[in-house]
Amino acid sequence: MGCTNGARSFTGSIIFAMNTQLLHVIKIGGGVIDNETQLQKFLHDYARIKGKKILVHGGGKMATRIAEQLGIKQTMLEGRRITDAATLKIVTMVYAGYINKSIVAILQSYGCNALGVCGADGNIIRAHKRDHPTVDYGFAGDIDSIHAQGIYSILDQETSLVISPITHDGKGQLLNTNADTIANEVAISMANFYQVRLLYCFEKNGVLKNAEDNTSVINKMNYIQYQQLKSNNSIFAGMIPKLDNAFKALQSGIEKVIIGNSQNLNELISGKSGTTITNDE
Amino acid sequence: MGCTNGARSFTGSIIFAMNTQLLHVIKIGGGVIDNETQLQKFLHDYARIKGKKILVHGGGKMATRIAEQLGIKQTMLEGRRITDAATLKIVTMVYAGYINKSIVAILQSYGCNALGVCGADGNIIRAHKRDHPTVDYGFAGDIDSIHAQGIYSILDQETSLVISPITHDGKGQLLNTNADTIANEVAISMANFYQVRLLYCFEKNGVLKNAEDNTSVINKMNYIQYQQLKSNNSIFAGMIPKLDNAFKALQSGIEKVIIGNSQNLNELISGKSGTTITNDE
Repeated sequence: MGCTNGARSFTGSIIFAMNTQLLHVIKIGGGVIDNETQLQKFLHDYARIKGKKILVHGGGKMATRIAEQLGIKQTMLEGRRITDAATLKIVTMVYAGYINKSIVAILQSYGCNALGVCGADGNIIRAHKRDHPTVDYGFAGDIDSIHAQGIYSILDQETSLVISPITHDGKGQLLNTNADTIANEVAISMANFYQVRLLYCFEKNGVLKNAEDNTSVINKMNYIQYQQLKSNNSIFAGMIPKLDNAFKALQSGIEKVIIGNSQNLNELISGKSGTTITNDE
Repeated sequence: MGCTNGARSFTGSIIFAMNTQLLHVIKIGGGVIDNETQLQKFLHDYARIKGKKILVHGGGKMATRIAEQLGIKQTMLEGRRITDAATLKIVTMVYAGYINKSIVAILQSYGCNALGVCGADGNIIRAHKRDHPTVDYGFAGDIDSIHAQGIYSILDQETSLVISPITHDGKGQLLNTNADTIANEVAISMANFYQVRLLYCFEKNGVLKNAEDNTSVINKMNYIQYQQLKSNNSIFAGMIPKLDNAFKALQSGIEKVIIGNSQNLNELISGKSGTTITNDE
């Protein structure tokens, strides 16, 4: 995927070497969004993070509930929603509308100036309709480019960005896009401007050796350790796409990736909780 | 209502005198939003307007339709929706989500870089829950302040703003707010930065002498003429709140207000169509 990034084109490694300002890119999933108390606690902690920050949120169960109420049948395939035209309307309403604006209003109440966007806003995330040889995913979008300079300009106004997982194709079509992938690609695109830390927050305490045991957290992991754990079948299979993305991010200039519980945000950032993934030996 | 406006505080009339750059603030209502062909034509023309521009959109019938499908009873009072908690969710989804993002995606396809927001985003519009002695309007918001500097910063990035009629109270509460009033207050707040023209686009060709005759357009109107027309009952009563707002805007530094058909945008801007309201004798 290509990144539109003015800084790289004009000044390249000079800016890269000067990246001392920290940026946290934090992704939250449906679990915390569906739980009002947990969401409030998370946003309270998020508002207090110093420096630049971007929040990427997923969907949660509201879209499915509304689709059911409206009689629009939902089809899931390998955990991904098949986005037909009626479903695209619903996810645009729920993700880019209700969830995004509710989060922004709560952050404002905590004194955090936030701006909620989808990928069409400011043209920040362009995607194309997924082209798959056998499955029609409907209006699911795979990312083509991130407008890093546009994101930088907003962050530079002392404003935090809240990104919903709806993108566009530049031809007027909105697309439903995986929020993990958005967090990953946005984080990578910002590595020319900031020292970037990418956090995946969910219900578990980190990457677990035993998926049933929330205390079996692997505290630190580099690529060699990851390969060993994978070959021993010591990692829950559902975590593997997240971890593959995490190492891809590290290779692309991200300082570290942290995976852990949305209710321990302060501890995740200070390294006292969760799984920290780095290039360190 | 108070305006947060840094430029006025620091440099006052000097900046006021230097406002030569044009800003169009354009409001579209439900009629054009509900008609896909008309919306495309309007946005095509909007994308081609030179210089700075802000689009404020209303709601349309989609929110009512979805509320009906979900079994949420809608109550209207003097043309205004009573916004209970369930209705607030729906209007946030529809106005700030589906309509706002669809407009932004179409504008991007026409080469117009747009950023869609509600009043909570960047804290641009603060409001309070309407306090009425006899009627409980629910989560209807009346505007307290516009963060003009925040709006200016976005426009200054060569980005057009698309504003949905959802505001917030700064305490985490989203509020449903009249789009005409938002257009008016946003336009007034920008008069310190730009030479502002405010356009109200709807289905009629302008302010009509005879509400049934779309050719009976009053081309120009100043305050004295308005008072005369009003006292002769020569103006459709439904237009009077819009016109009172228009003259309030003129008194607050807006150059002119234009009222006319959304399908004649170029002609409205060039003064060949619609009703132009100015302070001219």
